[in-house]
Amino acid sequence: VFRERVPAAIHIANAFGKLVGATQVRELGELETPILLTCTLCVWKAADGLVEWMLTQQGMDDVRSINPVVGETNDGGLNDIRARPINASHVKQAMEAASTGAVEEGSVGAGAGTIAFGWKGGIGTSSRKLPQNYGGYTVGVLVQSNFGGNLTIAGAPVGRELGRVAYREQNGDGSIMIVVATDAPITSRNLERLGARAIVGLARTGSSMSNGSGDFVIAFSTVRGKTDELTNDQMSPLFQAVAEATEEAIYNSLLKARTVKGARGTAEALPIDKVKEILRKYNAAR
Amino acid sequence: VFRERVPAAIHIANAFGKLVGATQVRELGELETPILLTCTLCVWKAADGLVEWMLTQQGMDDVRSINPVVGETNDGGLNDIRARPINASHVKQAMEAASTGAVEEGSVGAGAGTIAFGWKGGIGTSSRKLPQNYGGYTVGVLVQSNFGGNLTIAGAPVGRELGRVAYREQNGDGSIMIVVATDAPITSRNLERLGARAIVGLARTGSSMSNGSGDFVIAFSTVRGKTDELTNDQMSPLFQAVAEATEEAIYNSLLKARTVKGARGTAEALPIDKVKEILRKYNAAR
Amino acid sequence: VFRERVPAAIHIANAFGKLVGATQVRELGELETPILLTCTLCVWKAADGLVEWMLTQQGMDDVRSINPVVGETNDGGLNDIRARPINASHVKQAMEAASTGAVEEGSVGAGAGTIAFGWKGGIGTSSRKLPQNYGGYTVGVLVQSNFGGNLTIAGAPVGRELGRVAYREQNGDGSIMIVVATDAPITSRNLERLGARAIVGLARTGSSMSNGSGDFVIAFSTVRGKTDELTNDQMSPLFQAVAEATEEAIYNSLLKARTVKGARGTAEALPIDKVKEILRKYNAAR
Amino acid sequence: VFRERVPAAIHIANAFGKLVGATQVRELGELETPILLTCTLCVWKAADGLVEWMLTQQGMDDVRSINPVVGETNDGGLNDIRARPINASHVKQAMEAASTGAVEEGSVGAGAGTIAFGWKGGIGTSSRKLPQNYGGYTVGVLVQSNFGGNLTIAGAPVGRELGRVAYREQNGDGSIMIVVATDAPITSRNLERLGARAIVGLARTGSSMSNGSGDFVIAFSTVRGKTDELTNDQMSPLFQAVAEATEEAIYNSLLKARTVKGARGTAEALPIDKVKEILRKYNAAR
Repeated sequence: VFRERVPAAIHIANAFGKLVGATQVRELGELETPILLTCTLCVWKAADGLVEWMLTQQGMDDVRSINPVVGETNDGGLNDIRARPINASHVKQAMEAASTGAVEEGSVGAGAGTIAFGWKGGIGTSSRKLPQNYGGYTVGVLVQSNFGGNLTIAGAPVGRELGRVAYREQNGDGSIMIVVATDAPITSRNLERLGARAIVGLARTGSSMSNGSGDFVIAFSTVRGKTDELTNDQMSPLFQAVAEATEEAIYNSLLKARTVKGARGTAEALPIDKVKEILRKYNAAR
Repeated sequence: VFRERVPAAIHIANAFGKLVGATQVRELGELETPILLTCTLCVWKAADGLVEWMLTQQGMDDVRSINPVVGETNDGGLNDIRARPINASHVKQAMEAASTGAVEEGSVGAGAGTIAFGWKGGIGTSSRKLPQNYGGYTVGVLVQSNFGGNLTIAGAPVGRELGRVAYREQNGDGSIMIVVATDAPITSRNLERLGARAIVGLARTGSSMSNGSGDFVIAFSTVRGKTDELTNDQMSPLFQAVAEATEEAIYNSLLKARTVKGARGTAEALPIDKVKEILRKYNAAR
Repeated sequence: VFRERVPAAIHIANAFGKLVGATQVRELGELETPILLTCTLCVWKAADGLVEWMLTQQGMDDVRSINPVVGETNDGGLNDIRARPINASHVKQAMEAASTGAVEEGSVGAGAGTIAFGWKGGIGTSSRKLPQNYGGYTVGVLVQSNFGGNLTIAGAPVGRELGRVAYREQNGDGSIMIVVATDAPITSRNLERLGARAIVGLARTGSSMSNGSGDFVIAFSTVRGKTDELTNDQMSPLFQAVAEATEEAIYNSLLKARTVKGARGTAEALPIDKVKEILRKYNAAR
Repeated sequence: VFRERVPAAIHIANAFGKLVGATQVRELGELETPILLTCTLCVWKAADGLVEWMLTQQGMDDVRSINPVVGETNDGGLNDIRARPINASHVKQAMEAASTGAVEEGSVGAGAGTIAFGWKGGIGTSSRKLPQNYGGYTVGVLVQSNFGGNLTIAGAPVGRELGRVAYREQNGDGSIMIVVATDAPITSRNLERLGARAIVGLARTGSSMSNGSGDFVIAFSTVRGKTDELTNDQMSPLFQAVAEATEEAIYNSLLKARTVKGARGTAEALPIDKVKEILRKYNAAR
């Protein structure tokens, strides 16, 4: 990863957040480490652990500068975040267990303690594949959901109907990390623009990006090197794709989460049967 | 206006657009002229006309630098935009006719030739007033709508139901100018953040900010001088207010517009009866 | 030019200025018109004139969006800038007379009425060619100098020795436009970084970028399309080249200027013999 | 510090660097922790240590979000940076030993292992106080110097004369952290502009901000709350002050440093007698 860097960008919608590594990615337009997601007060230990692990990898003997990228949301509503429990061995374990294939969703990993719209949030994913006449590219989105607002699913006012509209007014207690990956040949400038459209999806779920919500998008392309970059004109279908995939990934982060009881409180899973009913009421079950 | 400048910021969601004056507003955090809205290829004549008018005003004899702010959307679908019909006398007339009070909406002014979601767009306004416990501040929004997407009203898929989903794929043919005014005591940094939340409202109407859509927000406060600025913590209710007001202003820009036949084509008004029906079908007439 | 766009970026060091077209260049990373330089209050007429001229060119019949790039400095110290004398015919004439080859320097064109460090400024150029082992690329710089400070040439305190240290304290009366061209294959992100290093050269001449100084760099590459872009690692020699060339171009803008008497005052040419003496005194005539 | 936040901004001249906390400072315009400076690969441990220390302070029991600001330069030329030797106890010790008064300069603290212009760099400070008619404000600058270039002191080509022009071509081996403090009543936007002028001072010392040089400025004001902010017009003298103080602070970081032998190499102190001679040769000993 360090030697074969991929084009990347970070779109910052609201920078109440501790995203480690953001500035260098913006300057150099590339990722030189895997991306970790963790809890707010764990980012520095996780970053240090990632650097420690990378320094020990083959061919890294002479490396004396690494820019780890570690995102976070604040799970202090459920967990004892002040304990900062993540250490280097967790990072090592995560790195060595990393694999391709489907990503587990819901109350897992960095999403284990998050709360979104007043319900248990977590990790969610989704993707869109463009038609061949638009290049056939894929856009994949992974979110770590932990923010407030008025939950809206496919246009239906689910939060209002459930009587739970959870605007966050305390600082720093709500955020979302959005990771966007694509196989479209685009570099940092258009990746940043792509990241901006992930926020379109976020907006549609009912977030109004409160002051304390760290809303970050890390976007990267898997295409390196000589391939011709897409022109600006070719970006619009990708923009629409990332908006849709982000909206859906957020829904999935809620729908796959289960009720979690933490050291500091409990977050209930979204009641799926009631949600279905609401979607029917609003004719939204498309 | 030139002497008694108001705090201002410009949030740029997508800078395919010719917004004159943007960079200086961002640097200095203030407006020194009224804001004009016009057609894409008319901005420079309008800016020059505004400067000409201002230079002749009382007390301006020694002024040799003015930063006019002129926004635009592209009405080339209806009008012969290449003719660039705006001249200094139109600007003078507009300036001298300017008054306080309700703003005319729909197919007027810079909105006379615009098209949004495939229907006649135009000028729309809306506002929100915060409860007293949040300071009682007002946020007003004016939009000039001229962009594509899948029209969604209060969550109902109006565009899809009407069979008119109008993604714009040609460059430069879709944009929105959003002007946000507030009496909350905030300066440029938080005005820029406020502007960013107007885009939340835009997203909810069905735009995915295509490549050629110039999506700009000009935000200003009417409060100058010594008053204490709001803290970051106090911004969230304003963020929600501007998102809601922008969404509603866009709807109003469509609902108040009438069918317009231009030199190059016709744009139909949104069929309000059918829209009402769709809103009922989706239980969205809240 | 409109169809065969070159990669471009605009670095803004201080945006007290009216540079037309800046935001779209930053978003799309490309130039779609020639660059014009003119006086502050002339930019809008010049921009409109450039659009008018371009619309009449072959193959432009269907174009309904153009983003002219027009920079400015304020020559209101010498000229009656409030008259805004530039019109479409001047632009047409300039466009049709444009040619390749050496650029005239000193008190010409947009530099006819400018003042730098209290002396007659104007247009200056310089360039650097990298050694072949760094790729052999050329960086060319053109400046329009019109700012204040303590003139320093090759380290020698020329302003102080001449008893003319001209800090500008009135707003908007000092600026520099810097245009950087290179044949290195780089796109917008690294062009922006290249532009940032032009400011290094500016700083060395004695500017401290006062509040009212619009300090802008427009950087473009002549290389379009499929060629491999330079890596970040390969940029440092270009960074040094642009810093040196900008410093030298500013000196040339002064050294080539002659005394000019305008409607509102006179600007003396830098007294070259005395400057030579000062350079000798400081052993700076390297 | 956490409760009584000061207005702050971060100016990023070149973001090859790991400055922790940058994005949140930019968004919220304030500092909520002391600023630490350390080595590149130590930033995350230092940030975590700072958070650990702050969480234990009085009145911090309910805090679950802190944004530590930790800057770095790469001392891997002298030290075994891969060992990342900083831990929480070092941070605690530093925090508890912090005092007001003169700052030690040269090869100390985060400057113990740095190299600038091929010579031993380190910590340097300087300040300027404006005349009373400009408000009488003070600007103080502290630098951690660790970058390459052609050392120029007060215009004299010291590097060239000493035969040591140290352009850095390896990535990530050169950087400067600049901390600017002022008692002028300015908030984030003008603090960011102030930070930009620190780079003017950096440029004059001979840096051309190579690709791998992380050039960051953290600027803050000690004035909180109701005081009237300075207008843009009042900033120019502060801009000049910060440029001069930064230039001088960099010289001091070299002149106060002594030869240091580290695990991986030795950095010689700048030979002050020879420097004096060179300054005389160039008549620069003003």
